[in-house]
Amino acid sequence: MSKPMQEKTVNAIRVLSVEGIQKANSGHPGLPLSSAPIAYALFQNHLKFNPKDPAFKDRDRFILSAGHGSMLNYACLHLYGYDVTKEDLENFRQLGSRTPGHPEYGHTAGVETSTGPLGQGIANAVGMAIAETALAAKFNKEGFPVVDHYTYAICGDGCLQEGIAYEAASLAGTLKLGKLIVFYDKNDITIEGNINCTFSEDVAARHVAQGWQVIKVANGNDPEAISRAIKKAKKETEKPSLIIVQTVIGYGSPKAGLAASHGAPLGEDGVLATKKTLGYENVPPFTVPEDVWAHAKRATARGRNAERDWKKMMKAYREAYPELAAEWDAWQSGKTPDLAADEDLWKFDKADATRNTGFTVLNKLAAKIPNLMGGSADLAPANKSNMTAREYYSVENRTGTNMHFGIREHAMSAICNGMALHGGLIPYCATFLVFSDYMKNAMRLSALMNLNVTYILTHDSIGVGEDGPTHQPIEHLTALRTIPGMKVFRPADGKETTAAWITAIKGNGPTSLVLSRQNLPQYEGSGAAALKGGYILSDSEKKVPDVILMASGSEVELIVKAQAELKARGVDARVVSMPCMELFDKQSKKYKESVIPASVRARVAVEAGSKMPWFKYVGLDGEVMGMESFGASAPAAKLFAHFGFTVENVVEKALAVVK
Amino acid sequence: MSKPMQEKTVNAIRVLSVEGIQKANSGHPGLPLSSAPIAYALFQNHLKFNPKDPAFKDRDRFILSAGHGSMLNYACLHLYGYDVTKEDLENFRQLGSRTPGHPEYGHTAGVETSTGPLGQGIANAVGMAIAETALAAKFNKEGFPVVDHYTYAICGDGCLQEGIAYEAASLAGTLKLGKLIVFYDKNDITIEGNINCTFSEDVAARHVAQGWQVIKVANGNDPEAISRAIKKAKKETEKPSLIIVQTVIGYGSPKAGLAASHGAPLGEDGVLATKKTLGYENVPPFTVPEDVWAHAKRATARGRNAERDWKKMMKAYREAYPELAAEWDAWQSGKTPDLAADEDLWKFDKADATRNTGFTVLNKLAAKIPNLMGGSADLAPANKSNMTAREYYSVENRTGTNMHFGIREHAMSAICNGMALHGGLIPYCATFLVFSDYMKNAMRLSALMNLNVTYILTHDSIGVGEDGPTHQPIEHLTALRTIPGMKVFRPADGKETTAAWITAIKGNGPTSLVLSRQNLPQYEGSGAAALKGGYILSDSEKKVPDVILMASGSEVELIVKAQAELKARGVDARVVSMPCMELFDKQSKKYKESVIPASVRARVAVEAGSKMPWFKYVGLDGEVMGMESFGASAPAAKLFAHFGFTVENVVEKALAVVK
Repeated sequence: MSKPMQEKTVNAIRVLSVEGIQKANSGHPGLPLSSAPIAYALFQNHLKFNPKDPAFKDRDRFILSAGHGSMLNYACLHLYGYDVTKEDLENFRQLGSRTPGHPEYGHTAGVETSTGPLGQGIANAVGMAIAETALAAKFNKEGFPVVDHYTYAICGDGCLQEGIAYEAASLAGTLKLGKLIVFYDKNDITIEGNINCTFSEDVAARHVAQGWQVIKVANGNDPEAISRAIKKAKKETEKPSLIIVQTVIGYGSPKAGLAASHGAPLGEDGVLATKKTLGYENVPPFTVPEDVWAHAKRATARGRNAERDWKKMMKAYREAYPELAAEWDAWQSGKTPDLAADEDLWKFDKADATRNTGFTVLNKLAAKIPNLMGGSADLAPANKSNMTAREYYSVENRTGTNMHFGIREHAMSAICNGMALHGGLIPYCATFLVFSDYMKNAMRLSALMNLNVTYILTHDSIGVGEDGPTHQPIEHLTALRTIPGMKVFRPADGKETTAAWITAIKGNGPTSLVLSRQNLPQYEGSGAAALKGGYILSDSEKKVPDVILMASGSEVELIVKAQAELKARGVDARVVSMPCMELFDKQSKKYKESVIPASVRARVAVEAGSKMPWFKYVGLDGEVMGMESFGASAPAAKLFAHFGFTVENVVEKALAVVK
Repeated sequence: MSKPMQEKTVNAIRVLSVEGIQKANSGHPGLPLSSAPIAYALFQNHLKFNPKDPAFKDRDRFILSAGHGSMLNYACLHLYGYDVTKEDLENFRQLGSRTPGHPEYGHTAGVETSTGPLGQGIANAVGMAIAETALAAKFNKEGFPVVDHYTYAICGDGCLQEGIAYEAASLAGTLKLGKLIVFYDKNDITIEGNINCTFSEDVAARHVAQGWQVIKVANGNDPEAISRAIKKAKKETEKPSLIIVQTVIGYGSPKAGLAASHGAPLGEDGVLATKKTLGYENVPPFTVPEDVWAHAKRATARGRNAERDWKKMMKAYREAYPELAAEWDAWQSGKTPDLAADEDLWKFDKADATRNTGFTVLNKLAAKIPNLMGGSADLAPANKSNMTAREYYSVENRTGTNMHFGIREHAMSAICNGMALHGGLIPYCATFLVFSDYMKNAMRLSALMNLNVTYILTHDSIGVGEDGPTHQPIEHLTALRTIPGMKVFRPADGKETTAAWITAIKGNGPTSLVLSRQNLPQYEGSGAAALKGGYILSDSEKKVPDVILMASGSEVELIVKAQAELKARGVDARVVSMPCMELFDKQSKKYKESVIPASVRARVAVEAGSKMPWFKYVGLDGEVMGMESFGASAPAAKLFAHFGFTVENVVEKALAVVK
């Protein structure tokens, strides 16, 4: 391959990037200018992709973990034939364009995940690489490499300073994810200046300590050296590879080597100067020279051929292994069985913690949904999150589908995002509700990308008991409910737990299953109605109740008992169980009115968490009973009494609002 | 020192621990049994402490980062003379006791920080070690080592797998915190089983890569070897030290070496068997043998002498350096000047972003409060969080008070907690509001410990603009407001920013300053009233308004303009600015009624975030205008219009609720 052609193509990527950023008058030129040779070497010589079929199942995955360099991604997608047009590049960062400020999954063909929050992309890549090995172990047969692809990511110093990156790399090393290849665009500059101020660690030695192969490329402008490094990385099948490429931030621009090139457009003059330096002074804006197009087409041809060969192979596979092929189709479809009609899922006979009933349901689902895969951040015995009939996934047993994520909540959540993004698997993960804090941004990204990731979050209130305030969630129900698109399901008994799991498996975004540590009764009136998120668990005798009592989870027991007490005092109460506000809010006006009639303003809501989410149902005339402080260390029953969660208190508040 | 006496004392710690856990019928015996020799070697031979004065300013700090092993801490505090009695040990994990399930700061003499959420303690220790160097650089003089102590922490595999631990260790290595000494109780067991399943990394090599000295102790039952390792760690002044101690989880118990010993009491039989193995079968429960008491007293005498010597030295220091001594007293007092009366702080003359007005106020405060110290997670130019007249803290310049935290939000927040816990400094830190997600648990701990840490959180809404949904906070105001004790201040203009900073500096727990990227007008009616959290910015003409408009931050502009529009349509609106709900809620009933009279049910609240926090003010008859989805990538002004944040919409909603 001629060096000038390589250079010219690399520079096309650079020029498109800075032009897009300049037109938007907003964006981050530093990384596209430094990383262009990496992206070029990868797309031109290695990446298995077919731009005409971005969903090609066995494509290599490419993640720009340093998402602020989005124009690098868009320029490559444009150049290598994806449906990203010149107009799209011109509309960078404009409302409704396909080229938003950071890469957004589901928004732009060829974008495999939404990045920008630093470090997430690396953990997503680990999740994809795990999915690849798991699916390969399940489906591949001698001569039929159904699943056989690499996962690539480009990251910068920012990603590698974030804790989530260390967590993910540590697990990747332990799991020997040999087909994971991460590029470190080492330009030694961050926003506040030279990296030395904050980051003196030996990144190569760190990754070796974590079980990675490390390859160094001294000259970041040498695509052939980068390509050789990729070859070496591919040859190493036992270890993930980190390719450290020494680059210059803002290369080719007047701000080369300076932090100033990171996050602001170069200015019209700066763009002109850059184009001159890069030999593009005579090329009109947003234009790819013909010879560069021709050069890039070789890569798209390679990808097209790869998919053609794969399809041919799959045809033979379908004949040789019809049952496996049918399973393949089922796993890839993302479809799940109709669970609500399954009577067996709804049977519970004794008082039990919802973490236990959740465990029962999970294990029944495990028998029906073979591509369910998940685990806990080292709390499986407490979260009750393992599938007992399944084996654990490990280096020796890639077909295992229980995961040991280690004590790495943040990476765990982002790895599940990666598994969901990869396709073929239905991931879940588990920890204590209070530690959802540790993985909050990754959970947000589950919601932003509308991924079917299920979160099992046990020990859901002061009911945690003796472990005390550091382990007792107070604000977490609120924090999760406020994430757009996150369904938060806090069941009151076994049947509501079934409804929670059915909601989770049905998907359309993530679901948090918030489960109790302590035993709860089983209610006769619960059941499929819980799928509506809120329903009348026990109605008043009168058509219009004197007071509406609402609660979720363990506090439903209090309002059920209070209903009886109130009856004895001549007050006719309706008991509304509200396990999932997000589902309830989506019901018809008529249904909602039938459960909580606008005319009844005497309302009491009870939840052993912060009060905030309940005011929209209770208004100014009702009463919310919740937590206004952190919890304390003591046996759970004592804590509920101490913080006022008693039947007597509910009765008192109800009587007060009825007046 | 006789080996039998060492062993007997170590075993006293072990036995007290398992007895406390057994009596509580709840707790974690695994770590106290494995780590007792470490704690013993430290307290007996090294730790500078005076149990009779737990606040001794130059004491060594000791953190049990593996907080689930709390009984280890309590047993040591009991043995070494702190105000932790036999009765306290017997009341482990009971309501109101001084021995809660996890160590709680402010609750038990000698507990330096609240631990339990894994990894936090290591980052707290880094913050304390930074504070030690900063104060030493400021106050120490030849012959007067006013600040000269070590910071010790014990952690387990759990802490070291968490991302926050890597982040904190990376910064500690870069900053060459030579007086930070961390013990790694390496027992190779986590809850889900052997560590190999999840954690194959070379922890020693990892820390060497991060700039640490690593010392290994092969036999975790050899206190003399541990003591020698501590000596070696103290000798290394350029690097923090990690002492890796190979131990056996649950040592001495029938469950030794098993995950089962981690988190459940041993049972009566198990305790008896353990006591027998450890030579305590004839010692009554919760009893320390006389010779063990006598042995431990040598350590308390050492500590008492150390404080006596320090006080003597301080007396001479006061004479030699009276001005510095006065500064010392001021810094240590935690007192801050009366800022509200300072007219200069309240002057702003032009439309400006609140991140800019915040910067102005911060820099005025920097001139008044010399012990203010803080910085950003690599976003200082965007957060506007640096003190321009100050230098940056670094290895070469320990007197600098601007911090480069690196791209490590979680560690940053926990490091600030450590700085606040150490005393002598007033810490703050900064990032984008959306990335508060990354440090959520540490922010929670600021609140749980009631620490005066200030969070500068800029780019506070869809006003972020082009960076798009990954960078636009929607749910974060809600998530922060729901943390008990966290004050969230979202100012509408310069004067409200002043009120925000005054609130933050006054302290009594953490404050989040939520600041805009985009320009906002200055209001005549704003000012000191903002210190009440909510106030009438522009009143209706009538005493009882037709409608109350409420907003915070950038949306105040909309309701101010809507007021004028409504007037033109014959509707008399009151404009309430609500920069800090937590402060407003604490005002007198009378004051709150004067701002939002109960009789006026026509209310509209506007905030470019999720609606949840506003329903308690708006009720069922009003209207909340907020975000119900994630944002998008586009110029900010377009986004506000796109998502309905317009004066016309406010007017329309107001007219609807008035009807």
